[in-house]
Amino acid sequence: MERKTIGIIGLGLIGGSMAIDLRRRGFAERVLGVEKEPLNAAAAKQIGLVDEVVSYEECIGRAGIVVVAIPVGAAVKTVCDVLDRFQAAEAKDKIVIDVCSTKEQVCQATRYHPCRAQFVSTHPMAGTEYSGPWAAMPGLFDGRACIFANSEESSPKALKTIEELYDALNMRPIYMNANQHDVHTAYVSHISHVTSFALALTVLDKEREGEKHIFDLASGGFSSTVRLAKSSADMWVPILTQNRENVLHVMDTYIEKMQEFREAVDQFDEDRVRALIEEANRIKKIIR
Amino acid sequence: MERKTIGIIGLGLIGGSMAIDLRRRGFAERVLGVEKEPLNAAAAKQIGLVDEVVSYEECIGRAGIVVVAIPVGAAVKTVCDVLDRFQAAEAKDKIVIDVCSTKEQVCQATRYHPCRAQFVSTHPMAGTEYSGPWAAMPGLFDGRACIFANSEESSPKALKTIEELYDALNMRPIYMNANQHDVHTAYVSHISHVTSFALALTVLDKEREGEKHIFDLASGGFSSTVRLAKSSADMWVPILTQNRENVLHVMDTYIEKMQEFREAVDQFDEDRVRALIEEANRIKKIIR
Repeated sequence: MERKTIGIIGLGLIGGSMAIDLRRRGFAERVLGVEKEPLNAAAAKQIGLVDEVVSYEECIGRAGIVVVAIPVGAAVKTVCDVLDRFQAAEAKDKIVIDVCSTKEQVCQATRYHPCRAQFVSTHPMAGTEYSGPWAAMPGLFDGRACIFANSEESSPKALKTIEELYDALNMRPIYMNANQHDVHTAYVSHISHVTSFALALTVLDKEREGEKHIFDLASGGFSSTVRLAKSSADMWVPILTQNRENVLHVMDTYIEKMQEFREAVDQFDEDRVRALIEEANRIKKIIR
Repeated sequence: MERKTIGIIGLGLIGGSMAIDLRRRGFAERVLGVEKEPLNAAAAKQIGLVDEVVSYEECIGRAGIVVVAIPVGAAVKTVCDVLDRFQAAEAKDKIVIDVCSTKEQVCQATRYHPCRAQFVSTHPMAGTEYSGPWAAMPGLFDGRACIFANSEESSPKALKTIEELYDALNMRPIYMNANQHDVHTAYVSHISHVTSFALALTVLDKEREGEKHIFDLASGGFSSTVRLAKSSADMWVPILTQNRENVLHVMDTYIEKMQEFREAVDQFDEDRVRALIEEANRIKKIIR
């Protein structure tokens, strides 16, 4: 395997963590970073996430693999722009990948691009509730799943290279179409963020009412359910917009379940509450 | 400090974990256990949680401190019964404590009992989503908060002894009235369990629809928000019943927040979604 020059656009949690492990595990010979926030760029350089911080144009010119690791709204435009530049420069061996948490829009936008084969659409399912270059960490991706969306639209050679890239990150590949991906993530990722945001809003309201000590009793269980409410708006506003229909559908089911629960509690219907809890307990078999 | 014979009624996660640390830290000279489930009793003996498993009557006769560590519905009746037996036996130096997650009902039921001063009502704010003697562990209580509810109704001597007991468990005491406790825990504990149950039900429904692989993409964020859905119905049905009014109130606020969020997403109102997320982000300052 030939060692590559990797260009990473967006040196946040995902881009930064990729930079660390691709270099330390020898997949990348050199890592170029693009970061439009001056503070983040300076931090990435100081932390040593990348070898150089360069301009967008220079990154595309020099990198063999371009990783677009910015929020999903901007990412769709950037992937298309990178493909345009590949075409203009007759750069047939370069590859661009995205790491978006939603896959349908980016796949739709690129579907008929003359350089579509040079694009591999991926979603490494890893992260924390923190963001920015400071949040980057080694080993973030180890053992987690990486989705390859609509991989039949990529050239076999580009696909193979990116499979090797994620193999270097110790991720296990899962292949699915973009639409299926977005339905699944609405259920097992996006709704969790919304329920956390709503929980935080509920308790913060109570605190504002004057219950200054409401959090004194917060235990591990509360922290666990509310942790995702720390997640950044820059990342989540476009995800919820792009995956709007799936997310709304899951939210509706979720609100129904809450109301069913509420009714059972309201009516002192202990048998019904017990049945709902025992049904929910089935999650034990699924989540370790 | 004189070493005590401690009687623990209910050898589950809380009772069992107390048994372990009270003995290993020298607060208890001897730990007697009462457990009505034969399998749990045998397990507690085999694991060595307690010195002896004895009958309820023998436990009250021999123990200086009786810990009632059973689900909250049964606990209210048992605490009253233990106080009755203290009175009949003229056992003026014995103490009974409860460890219930709801405090109003147990405090109300005992308020006018002639032996009320021998009862200390506490809520050690620690736990996991697992239950039974197998779930018991050393160090469960370390560094966590322990609520003393309506402590002015206990005798100063009994209160001091139980403060020492929780000090041996490395807990920090917080004093509040039972009503205030139940409002607070509805916000920072009970609602978290309900949102987890509802989340599990939502995703399990989808799985049942035939999406067998829905959980393949579940990441750390999902596990974290759904973890509490493993919690036992035996524990949670009576908590939700006893704290019904507060829980319903918090659920209503929570459902409103979800609907507000839903509407903003539905209307493509990105500014509103952003404002809600940024408001929720304030939780960062509160939860480490």
